[in-house]
Amino acid sequence: MTNVSETPAAAELHSGPHGYISNKDDYLKRLRRIEGQARGLQGMVTDEKYCIDILTQVSAMTSALQSVALGLLNDHLNHCVLDAAVRGGDEAEAKIKEAYDAIARLVRS
Amino acid sequence: MTNVSETPAAAELHSGPHGYISNKDDYLKRLRRIEGQARGLQGMVTDEKYCIDILTQVSAMTSALQSVALGLLNDHLNHCVLDAAVRGGDEAEAKIKEAYDAIARLVRS
Amino acid sequence: MTNVSETPAAAELHSGPHGYISNKDDYLKRLRRIEGQARGLQGMVTDEKYCIDILTQVSAMTSALQSVALGLLNDHLNHCVLDAAVRGGDEAEAKIKEAYDAIARLVRS
Amino acid sequence: MTNVSETPAAAELHSGPHGYISNKDDYLKRLRRIEGQARGLQGMVTDEKYCIDILTQVSAMTSALQSVALGLLNDHLNHCVLDAAVRGGDEAEAKIKEAYDAIARLVRS
Repeated sequence: MTNVSETPAAAELHSGPHGYISNKDDYLKRLRRIEGQARGLQGMVTDEKYCIDILTQVSAMTSALQSVALGLLNDHLNHCVLDAAVRGGDEAEAKIKEAYDAIARLVRS
Repeated sequence: MTNVSETPAAAELHSGPHGYISNKDDYLKRLRRIEGQARGLQGMVTDEKYCIDILTQVSAMTSALQSVALGLLNDHLNHCVLDAAVRGGDEAEAKIKEAYDAIARLVRS
Repeated sequence: MTNVSETPAAAELHSGPHGYISNKDDYLKRLRRIEGQARGLQGMVTDEKYCIDILTQVSAMTSALQSVALGLLNDHLNHCVLDAAVRGGDEAEAKIKEAYDAIARLVRS
Repeated sequence: MTNVSETPAAAELHSGPHGYISNKDDYLKRLRRIEGQARGLQGMVTDEKYCIDILTQVSAMTSALQSVALGLLNDHLNHCVLDAAVRGGDEAEAKIKEAYDAIARLVRS
């Protein structure tokens, strides 16, 4: 998991904790639920549950993941991108390019 | 997790194991990897890793889930739907409606 | 616009009009509205309307297109795929593969 | 087509031409092609062309639209959002909220 679009300048800025996540406990709770859904799906496949029921569960899990992604993106825009924009220069541009690339991946995934 | 579009007639057909899943071990392996990704994401949030890296991971996980869903749908079309179509009548229609609803959820999720 | 997954046997079956579309006038009406949206977008770009308003319009147009696609897919499953399944054999299999490929493209686009 | 998330302050900023679109002619060319695809689809439905071929065309058109949306979003982030961020204050926040809402609509459409 590397960030291929990252410039050396941008990399410096995000080693270590970032502290921009608005509500860590809420994200952790949602991700634990998603992990539970992945485990539930394994049980359904093992028991050969009805395919359509498995697919319904996969759709719910995909929506939950998408919602986590949008929340993180919102935090990112309001902290990292906004801060970099205020500082200006190449870093601002690099941050916006990086955010855009992440958005394009979300839209296309 | 209930299948709201299920007719009583269709319900009878899918109590118990269905045996239509082409390669259970492969699905289980992929779902375990997806479960691991959900756990990895929790670690990344706990450690406040860089948001863009988390989003990259969420996109990869979403694609993996989508790919599992498409595989299951393919198995479903080739077994349950095809069998029901051969038997014909209301059941065939009900199975196609059910598959269509699942596809619409996938397209929109 | 060629259908790369089409087998020679399947190709024979769908030269000429297919007559499976449930409500041609309704589809044509929706597609004319979509064409109008595409023209409206050109006007917005020419007039340099606010980007967010253009994006709102693009999202509406994408949803309208998706909805047309799902309607056509539903008609296809209930006619071509169901008929081929009843006839059985390689053709049934080919039709299901073809429908699956179209669904995968919709899910991923 | 109104922008429901728009604050009065933000509204003032985007009456009139915005001049942020990087390459108007390129967008217009792509939108004309998309308009042509919408017209082509009407012809295919009128002639009752094979459903799968119509769906292939719809997928291509959806991808083309998505690509226009991502291009416009990129321009928007690099101009309106970046400029507002530099000016700071409520306006910056409003612009980011507005961009986020548009992104969420794209991801979900």
